[in-house]
Amino acid sequence: MAEKAIGIFDSGLGGLTCVRRIEKLLPGQKIVFFGDTGRLPYGGRSKDTIIRYTTQDLNFLKTFDLKLIVAACGTVSTMALDEIKKASGIPLLGVVEPSVKQAVSATKTKRIGVIGTAATISSGAYERHINALMSDAEVFSKACPLFVPLVENGHYRSDDAVVMAIVEEYLSELKANNIDTLILGCTHYPLLRQAIEKFFGPDVTLIDSGAACANEVENVLTKMGISPQEGSEGGCRFFVSDRTGDFASLASIFLGRAVDDSDVGLVDIYSY
Amino acid sequence: MAEKAIGIFDSGLGGLTCVRRIEKLLPGQKIVFFGDTGRLPYGGRSKDTIIRYTTQDLNFLKTFDLKLIVAACGTVSTMALDEIKKASGIPLLGVVEPSVKQAVSATKTKRIGVIGTAATISSGAYERHINALMSDAEVFSKACPLFVPLVENGHYRSDDAVVMAIVEEYLSELKANNIDTLILGCTHYPLLRQAIEKFFGPDVTLIDSGAACANEVENVLTKMGISPQEGSEGGCRFFVSDRTGDFASLASIFLGRAVDDSDVGLVDIYSY
Repeated sequence: MAEKAIGIFDSGLGGLTCVRRIEKLLPGQKIVFFGDTGRLPYGGRSKDTIIRYTTQDLNFLKTFDLKLIVAACGTVSTMALDEIKKASGIPLLGVVEPSVKQAVSATKTKRIGVIGTAATISSGAYERHINALMSDAEVFSKACPLFVPLVENGHYRSDDAVVMAIVEEYLSELKANNIDTLILGCTHYPLLRQAIEKFFGPDVTLIDSGAACANEVENVLTKMGISPQEGSEGGCRFFVSDRTGDFASLASIFLGRAVDDSDVGLVDIYSY
Repeated sequence: MAEKAIGIFDSGLGGLTCVRRIEKLLPGQKIVFFGDTGRLPYGGRSKDTIIRYTTQDLNFLKTFDLKLIVAACGTVSTMALDEIKKASGIPLLGVVEPSVKQAVSATKTKRIGVIGTAATISSGAYERHINALMSDAEVFSKACPLFVPLVENGHYRSDDAVVMAIVEEYLSELKANNIDTLILGCTHYPLLRQAIEKFFGPDVTLIDSGAACANEVENVLTKMGISPQEGSEGGCRFFVSDRTGDFASLASIFLGRAVDDSDVGLVDIYSY
């Protein structure tokens, strides 16, 4: 019997930062990735629309033989996870709880910052989860709606004047609030890590949702009685809903490894 | 018999800059506007996807009794207009030809700049139309993929440091090429007019596709034997595919007048 894969999906390609961490931590695992590049970004859309799109993403992934699904998208994890969990039939992880666990462990001053898309921040999901684990934590949130378009258009380096102007615009308030831990609540943001570190200096711990999520995948597989360090030869199959033509160049930035344009399949996501 | 309306559509709300100009120039005309806010932005998507989305936009508008349709979107006008014209059955205008006519009249040095989304610029449509009217014109093009997200997130003022950093990043090359005329090849860009004027100074003429398009609507109605200055009491009905909740606040920026949230209808665009 063929080994079951881990299904991972995102509104776009940001979720590949999560794939990257899982490939590193659990190299034997087979992965199927879907990025909804025909409808990104989700972060500015209404809850109804996000649930509708997410349901179709999940329906597509469920055409594969999966043991676990990861919503590698801050917006989906905060806006639609509870709704789609019921219909999933397969264990389903988001990025919120793993990131919150790490942040609560990391903070010394109990002053935690959270950044994400407009939808993620307005959901209040991170605050609720943080306060459930640490009731006296103070949470400072900031929506950063331009970070996804920046990264998607190749602007993420810390020596890029445009990047640093937007980082300063969005993050000055959090700096003034003396946070000691910052959750990067969107899977695109790990690419901005150096720029954000440059802005905050060494005293703020950054929590990368991709890395946190990879650890949680390992835990969940262990609890399911599956040895996460074993598996087949690994490997990831990629699917998107648009723009296969420049997939390789963009995806290699998120994955930190070479990808070939022939590795990606085009999905008619409206039919799911 | 009820008077026929002018149908206007865009990938988002940028096309309202065109509605604004038509309301001013032809105040008696009834307008039906559709903005595909559930799937914006179109500018980074593939040609197939843009044609598919545009066909559905057109099918929705055609449920109204229309005399003329305006694709108030640079990306649609350059990527999909020829394809959808065949299926329209109603006279259909884009923003390219009207803007190009004005640019060719305005230029003295025959050095014309064009800015637009990635899809618009890679189509080469503006160059082809300019050179068809003025074969010795030199055209300098630049894709500005962050301008739409900037405007959609409320960053467009000329005293905004983020706006001016991105304007400088994108437009320095065109300035070095000594253009004397610049086509704003996306209906979001008129909101950035002051920032762009501040960057270029008074010697570069900016061509606003909304204004150019309003003039062309007047011409076409006249040719059709319809008196464009007459009509009913005017008025515009608005429809979008997502985010009716914050429609009024965003739309009023583009329209330059107050709008009420109750003025907008939600469309299930996938069903068209």
